[in-house]
Amino acid sequence: MKENRYDDDVFFDKYSRMSRSVQGLSGAGEWRELEKLLPDFRGKRVLDLGCGYGWHCIYAAEHGARLVEGTDISHKMLAVAAEKCRMEQVHFIQCAMEDLEYEPECFDVVFSSLAFHYVADFGSLVEKIGRWLTPGGKFVFSVEHPVFTAEGSQEWIYDKDGKILYFPVDHYYYEGKRDAVFLGEHVVKYHRTMTTYVQTLLTRGFVLDALVEPQPPEDMMDLPGMKDEMRRPMMLLLAATKTSAGCGDCNS
Amino acid sequence: MKENRYDDDVFFDKYSRMSRSVQGLSGAGEWRELEKLLPDFRGKRVLDLGCGYGWHCIYAAEHGARLVEGTDISHKMLAVAAEKCRMEQVHFIQCAMEDLEYEPECFDVVFSSLAFHYVADFGSLVEKIGRWLTPGGKFVFSVEHPVFTAEGSQEWIYDKDGKILYFPVDHYYYEGKRDAVFLGEHVVKYHRTMTTYVQTLLTRGFVLDALVEPQPPEDMMDLPGMKDEMRRPMMLLLAATKTSAGCGDCNS
Repeated sequence: MKENRYDDDVFFDKYSRMSRSVQGLSGAGEWRELEKLLPDFRGKRVLDLGCGYGWHCIYAAEHGARLVEGTDISHKMLAVAAEKCRMEQVHFIQCAMEDLEYEPECFDVVFSSLAFHYVADFGSLVEKIGRWLTPGGKFVFSVEHPVFTAEGSQEWIYDKDGKILYFPVDHYYYEGKRDAVFLGEHVVKYHRTMTTYVQTLLTRGFVLDALVEPQPPEDMMDLPGMKDEMRRPMMLLLAATKTSAGCGDCNS
Repeated sequence: MKENRYDDDVFFDKYSRMSRSVQGLSGAGEWRELEKLLPDFRGKRVLDLGCGYGWHCIYAAEHGARLVEGTDISHKMLAVAAEKCRMEQVHFIQCAMEDLEYEPECFDVVFSSLAFHYVADFGSLVEKIGRWLTPGGKFVFSVEHPVFTAEGSQEWIYDKDGKILYFPVDHYYYEGKRDAVFLGEHVVKYHRTMTTYVQTLLTRGFVLDALVEPQPPEDMMDLPGMKDEMRRPMMLLLAATKTSAGCGDCNS
């Protein structure tokens, strides 16, 4: 059962007030590191899985993509996206990403921002993405970091005065459902190990281009709680290239 | 200042009683996963950095390596290694790995087991290893996992009854020295993020072949403390191939 948390009124309202929702890409702490991993979009066909408000679709289109398909399970998110973006090369589709079907090799870039930790079966999804991509095609995504998802609560441990002591890691090798609290609401997320994220790519025809745990940017350090983000990794960025037929040695 | 902890009598004595010291490879929880990442050694020239008792040198020689060079900073460790191994294709050299110098492309395989977290400058070392390896050469190593080295104490957090609550992560993005306790003795180790381990390889001419956080083997689960090793990652295994000149696309 695919959860559609973002169509819940309370959750949607809270999400809409986050800095990344109000300010867009520049309001997301990881954006500057993520942007460095993005390919040249000129002339490319781009798929954005879990596109939300469509910020990254707009970015791809503004950087020359000739076709951008943004998909999301949430009707409410896509309604905002459609309002923000009226470029004719950008299309939005309401669909759980697990249910998408495309012809082989119909995209040059597949992108996803902070959505795969809502997906139960990462392996099947990556297999599909591998089919949808052209040889040499780029796959770039962000997810919540395994350190952040392992224990489940996604909460710091505090001392009796409310000061942060450390971040707890537990159940690391037990992958699967976690009942996390996000924006004060219960949300089901899926924990996976770093091994699973990386090996799933390497064993399904991808070469790894980059693995980055983004640090908070210097000029955001004064925002509430941002300094504490130096104490544990919260996000993981991965960039990979679909192995081209002429270069099978790369992935041996 | 390179620390030579293993030549300290007390430390050496305690280390010699660990299951990995008594039983060799089969006594190391990560061995079965590590073995899967090793290349075909037949006819290869192999360098083992921080070889300790030489178990992996012996393995490489027994699996067909034509030359194996084991290096370690510790005289005591190498004395044991020399006694265990009297194969003519295996040589042991006492030297801190940071001080080693070799001709370019003189090894086909570079290996290291649980030694790089004692090295301050990982980047310079990987650059050297890249030069020493032939194109297409293999680089396989294990280190303590960034989750395990981040906070510093390498200790679980316990409740008042002495039961494990979780493992603490802290100071994650602050790389560098940690005053860890290993076998009840103080040891200086160096914490690095997962990003640093992987990106150092990818930006210095390597293609990543595997990233594995080894789980405790099923049949070791009854050993004291082994079940708890399912709760946090303690080790990290990485395997990479030096990019060959004819395949420059791999690492773009």
